[in-house]
Parts: sequence; structure tokens; C-alpha cells
Amino acid sequence: MARPKVVIVGGGFGGLACARKLDGAPVDVLVLDGRNYHLFTPLLYQVATGLLNPSDIAYPLRRCFRRSRNVRFRQAEVAKVDLAGKRLLTGDGHDVTYDHLVLATGSTNNYFGHQDLAGATIGMKTLGEAMRLRNHVLSCLERGANEPDEDERRRWLTFVIVGGGPTGVEYAGALVELLRLVLGRDYPELRPGMARIVLAEGRPRLLDAFPERLARYAERTLERRGVEVRTGALVAKATDLVALLSDGEEIPTRTIVWSAGVRPDAPDTTPEPARSRSHRIEVDECLQIRGHEDAFAIGDVAAGPAADPELPMLSAVAMQQGRYVARLILARARVPSAGKRRTAPAPFRYFDKGILATIGRNAAVGQIGAVGLTGFLGWVAWLVVHLYYLVGFRNRVFVFSSWAWAYLKEDRPIRIIARADDDPIVPGE
Amino acid sequence: MARPKVVIVGGGFGGLACARKLDGAPVDVLVLDGRNYHLFTPLLYQVATGLLNPSDIAYPLRRCFRRSRNVRFRQAEVAKVDLAGKRLLTGDGHDVTYDHLVLATGSTNNYFGHQDLAGATIGMKTLGEAMRLRNHVLSCLERGANEPDEDERRRWLTFVIVGGGPTGVEYAGALVELLRLVLGRDYPELRPGMARIVLAEGRPRLLDAFPERLARYAERTLERRGVEVRTGALVAKATDLVALLSDGEEIPTRTIVWSAGVRPDAPDTTPEPARSRSHRIEVDECLQIRGHEDAFAIGDVAAGPAADPELPMLSAVAMQQGRYVARLILARARVPSAGKRRTAPAPFRYFDKGILATIGRNAAVGQIGAVGLTGFLGWVAWLVVHLYYLVGFRNRVFVFSSWAWAYLKEDRPIRIIARADDDPIVPGE
Repeated sequence: MARPKVVIVGGGFGGLACARKLDGAPVDVLVLDGRNYHLFTPLLYQVATGLLNPSDIAYPLRRCFRRSRNVRFRQAEVAKVDLAGKRLLTGDGHDVTYDHLVLATGSTNNYFGHQDLAGATIGMKTLGEAMRLRNHVLSCLERGANEPDEDERRRWLTFVIVGGGPTGVEYAGALVELLRLVLGRDYPELRPGMARIVLAEGRPRLLDAFPERLARYAERTLERRGVEVRTGALVAKATDLVALLSDGEEIPTRTIVWSAGVRPDAPDTTPEPARSRSHRIEVDECLQIRGHEDAFAIGDVAAGPAADPELPMLSAVAMQQGRYVARLILARARVPSAGKRRTAPAPFRYFDKGILATIGRNAAVGQIGAVGLTGFLGWVAWLVVHLYYLVGFRNRVFVFSSWAWAYLKEDRPIRIIARADDDPIVPGE
Repeated sequence: MARPKVVIVGGGFGGLACARKLDGAPVDVLVLDGRNYHLFTPLLYQVATGLLNPSDIAYPLRRCFRRSRNVRFRQAEVAKVDLAGKRLLTGDGHDVTYDHLVLATGSTNNYFGHQDLAGATIGMKTLGEAMRLRNHVLSCLERGANEPDEDERRRWLTFVIVGGGPTGVEYAGALVELLRLVLGRDYPELRPGMARIVLAEGRPRLLDAFPERLARYAERTLERRGVEVRTGALVAKATDLVALLSDGEEIPTRTIVWSAGVRPDAPDTTPEPARSRSHRIEVDECLQIRGHEDAFAIGDVAAGPAADPELPMLSAVAMQQGRYVARLILARARVPSAGKRRTAPAPFRYFDKGILATIGRNAAVGQIGAVGLTGFLGWVAWLVVHLYYLVGFRNRVFVFSSWAWAYLKEDRPIRIIARADDDPIVPGE
């Protein structure tokens, strides 16, 4: 009998965890991703602020499976999924069949219907966006340093961050550090006091997913370091010259960073699967797409197991789901149907290991079980956890060295404004 | 009396050496460059082959002068130079006056009048080009791995390098290593034998600037490692599907790398200075632009001192000229004119320390004085010299670590296909 063929769409946290669990098992695995690397998204903000190189947090997917005999990678976008015919169509026109499908395509920036915001803001969800943001902010400092008009200079040096979740908080903390380190020193024309960072959050407080005590600590720490925190404030309008907040305040700025939310990013699928309120694909307690026994959805793209509230869009959820689905597929592969009734597997259960967010040098917040961490202790926990989950020994060594350098020298060394020249055969982000 | 104002256009090897020599002296120095970093161009080919990060060989110019009291940097292209009025116009519309001008704008790809070649080839003169080349080659491997048609696969996996100078030789050696390391391992669909690298040089031999014995060694070594060396062959025509050599051979390929030559890249200048045959600005034996006592040209952009043959376009020439001009400016600043006749300074003399080119693992060629180096010894000399001339302690540490890793693990770790998203305020390369 031919070995079952498992196709995993997406090489993020969920897809990678699933593929690794299937590595060496009696199944053939094909991982498809439009990018050729696994991206460690929690550290994107450090690429955006000149602390890490893009390659430090991006690991070539082919390298993950270099020694594998049964896991293969192909760089390809998936254009269409045909659940009834059990096949996919890739963006480059290839047809791929599967016995088991794992949809793990993650999420993308959510503008909540205001697509005009997409054009006037910079996201922080892809490596291309983080590199753009690095280039953009450094260019703003250069332009600000050359600007004789005081109002215009102020506009170049004002940075508005929309969304007070972990991404917005971590970026705000890192940006205020970057500016404190370089204004006045590398930019003798400018003083740190000339810059302004506004962090706007629509809800009454930052870090909605954290206990209130920790969120207050984060808010106080950011404010003490120079970030203006505006809770209860949405961005009503954004152009390349101004951000208008819902409370009527107009902020002249050249930079609006969008970290206000993400939405699931699944390929076109027929028949169209049921979606939750947040447009995630509804899955049963075994993470199967309803009505399609051999198709699973995991991570940000999936809503389930049917719980209310939905599981958070976290790497931990995606990884646990990826490993769960891998075990399920293997259990089924070992019971070759032959009319025999499959025993119902235990439903997926998310084990919550906790959440962490860093605010900057020596400061982070974390909730691990019943324990709330703040300050230096939270910061050390954050460092250890992030190093542990980074993929690849070399990346761990280089990230750790970069952190040590940045900490000891108070430096953000990767401050080059650089972009690869366009190339017609290279896929865009 | 006001301190003399020195404007240096270009933060390459010449401009940087000049600025550093003037650091701390009683002059005000402004360095202008369209990029915000000094680029260590001799290692561009290692960025293009996934060995080094872009930031490893690009050093923020503001950081070079962080502690300086008299050297300032401004990121700006220079649109026009008015030698008679002693002023510049920058691309962003600012007017800059000077007492002393140092033109150090370097060189750009030379297509020898065949501008159609520019569109069909990839250069290796800027960081954007090297990053593009990395993305392009990795994409070719992905496309080749997915290509069912054998001829088309072969086309994706054929790489033509035009120009057998140090850049072409070093890139060819690095590319053949990259392919040997990843084909078959990371690309189980492909075998190293499927790839083809052709190095075409119009002259009768490679490395024209080196003694014939060393050039022969380089040629033999490259061929033994799998590069097809074609001497006496120009590229007559290039499209995105094929390279046509002057001997009539048609090579189906998706990749033509242009390293066949460079030309000086000076801003528009009035009055138009005299140019040499190779379009370099003619300077006298003190590197002054003829007829303009307070304007100097150094490095690739300058032809002089009036010697035949012209000095080579090497970083060593540019650096020595930069330091010479700095000394000259200081000597003049210390003798405030007052009708007094300046003593004629000693003319510039280039001290040739030698040349080096690496062919890959354990192999390089070098000519230092009367001593010709090959093999392992040449390679070690190459490593030491390049580490020594890299700017910045951190870059040296990280480059050395990356080299050690790549050597011991036989790895080219930075194999991500990634490009910063476009941003309207970021200057293009």
C-alpha cells in the first residue's frame, strides 16, 4: 500500500510543529509555503528597530528538513483548495493531491474593513514589513535631521502606533529605546526630546489578554520611558501626513504603525467551509474542517475546538495543534481502514503555558499559571523562552550574541537603510 | 576666523579615509552620501551567496562619527556641483557651500554603451544588487526544483558570470560552493551535477591585474571545482532566457551576472572638468581637479596623478588618496593665505601593498610586492586583510564568527528570499 501523503500548507509555528512531528514516520509529507523560510514573528519588532538581522529570525524551511527522508518542502503559494477532490492548485500552476491536508496559513493584518488604512500605515506581520519599517523610521530620522522647519521636523519625528496588544507594546518599548540611544548621539542635530511616540489602543487598557495589574505596569513603564499611551482611542483617519484619533486629536506624523489586529488568511477553498464570527475556519474538537474528515485547520486560521471565547491567535496554540494533528494522522495511518471503525480520538485540549510581553531593557510582563511576573524577572523569563523557541542552533547563538551586544553596549547596530533591488522572478511578500 | 568647511561627497573607502583623517582637526567636515552606510564592497559576493548578512558589511556612517566633534554626516545625493561658485545642490533641494571639496563618489556598473545588457543582467556593485542576486539565485533553485521539463530545469540552474576580474572570480568560486553544499542536501530533487556555472572573460585570461602564474592557478582551481571558464569570450547578447557569447555559443540561462567593468560615477559638475579616456576626472599630482585649487577628486572617480596607465580602481588607492587630501587640506588650513605663497606639497604617490582574490575554501591568489601567494597561504592572507579593513569591531566579530561557522559546518546559513516592502520615503539604491 502506498504511504499516505500529508500536505501541510504553511510553514509557520503550526505547520512546522506538525511537519516535525511527522518527520521519520511512515507518511510522505509535503510542506508548501509562499516564503522559503519559517519566520519567528515574536521578534519581528527587533528587526524593525535595528537590533536583529532578518536572517536571525527567519530559518530556511528546506534546512529544517535537510536530514529528513519523508518531509519535503516546496516554495509555492496555494491558490485554491478543493476539499471534495482532495487536491490543491498552487500559484505556479501545479496540481497537488493529498490524503491528509493541514491548513496552517496563519493570519494577516486586519484593517476591519477600512482598507484606506492599509495604504497609510505600515504593518508588522511579515519580514518585508519589518524591514520596511526599519528603513522607514531611519529615513524619518535622516529627513528630520535635515529639516529646517520646526513643525515639519516634529512631524518626521512623531511615530503613532495603533494597537496596544503585545506587538504594539513591544514595538513602542523598542522604538523609544532606539530613539533614546541615537538621537543626540548619532544625530547631533536632534535631541531625544524632539521625538514623540503615541501608542493608541481602542480598549480601556493595554494588553487585553493580560491581567489588569500587569497591563497597568506595562502602561506605567512605557509612559515613564516616554511613550504617550492613549487608551480608549481608535484611529479614525490616517494619511501620510496625519493621524486623526477618535477623540478628535490630530497628530501630525509621517509614520503610523498598524498593530491593531489580524485576521485569518486562508486560501480559496471549495466547498466554502463554515467560518466563525472572526472568519476563522470552524473545526471540530479534533481540528477537522467540518464535513471533511481528512482536512484539518490549525493555528490562527482555525476556530476551535468549538469554544467560546475562541482560542487566542498564539504560536503556542498553533504548535500544540500541529503536534496534535500529526499524532491523529499517524494514529489513522496505522489503522488502515478496511471497514474497521476508527476509535474516536481524544479531543484537542490547549495547555496554556502562559503569556509574555517585553517592554524593553530589564522590563517585561508575564502570566504563567497563577504567577504574574513583572520587571527584571519577567524580562529574563522572556529572553529564555524566546531563545528556546527560536529555530536553529546558529540563530540562537547569533540572537543571543546580538542581545548581549545590544544590552552591554546600549546599541542598535543594524541601522542600515537597505532593500534588495527588485527582481522579476522573486515572489513578493 | 571661521574654520574652513570641508565637504566630502561619498562615504566609500576614499571619503571615509579622508573624513577620519580630518576628525579632530580644526576644520568642519560634512560627509554626504545617498546611502546611510559605508559599504565594504569586497565582500558583496558573500552577501550574494548567503554567507554574510547585509549589515555585516554595511556600517552606518553616522556611527563612524558618533564621537567626532567636527565631522557630520547627511544622507543626501548630490545633484550638481558648481566648482566656480564653490557650492553643491543636493537631491533634496538643499544648497551646501564649501571651502574645500572632496569628490569621492566611486564607480558604477559599466555596460560599455550596451544599456540593453543592464536590463538583462544583475550587477554586483551595491548592497541592493547583492541582495537581489541572493534572492534571485535562491529563487532559481526553487523554480528549478519544481520544474518537470529537463531543458527548462537546466535553464534555471545555469548561471553565467560576465567578467573574470576579482569580482567575477570570487563570485564564481562562492557560487559553485553554495550549489555544491545545497543541491542534493537541501534540494533532494536536484543533484549538484545539474547546475552549470559559466565564467566568461573577454581577455585571453582571468585576473588581468595579477601575474599570469596566479591567474592560471585561479583558472585551474575554478575549473577543478566545476566552473566552466571561457576566456576570449564576450557576451554579445543577453535576454532573460539566454546569453549569447561572442564565439557563437548560446547558453540558455535565467541568470547573467554582470561584473565586466565599472565606470566613474560623478555628479553633474560645472564647469565640466576634463576627463580621461575612461571618463575619470583628471586631477593633477596633488589630486586637485584641474583649474580648481580647492576641489579634489579621489578614488575610482579620479584619473591621476597623470600617470599612464591610470591607477587601478582599488580601495587601497582611494584610501591613500583620501588621507593624502586630508593632510593637504590641513596643511593649507594652517597657513592662512594672507598673500603668502603656499609651498608646493609633495605629489601623491600610490604605495602598492598588493592585490588579493579568493577562489573559495582554502584557495586564493595574492601578489604582495615580489611575493606571489596561492592556495591556503593566500587564503589566510585574504581573510586577515579583509577582517583588518572591515569597519567596526562588532562587524569584525560577527564576520569572523560567520566565516568560522560556514567553514566548520560547510554551510551558507543566510538563505532567505526576503526584501523590504517598498516605502515611498526611502531612497532607492
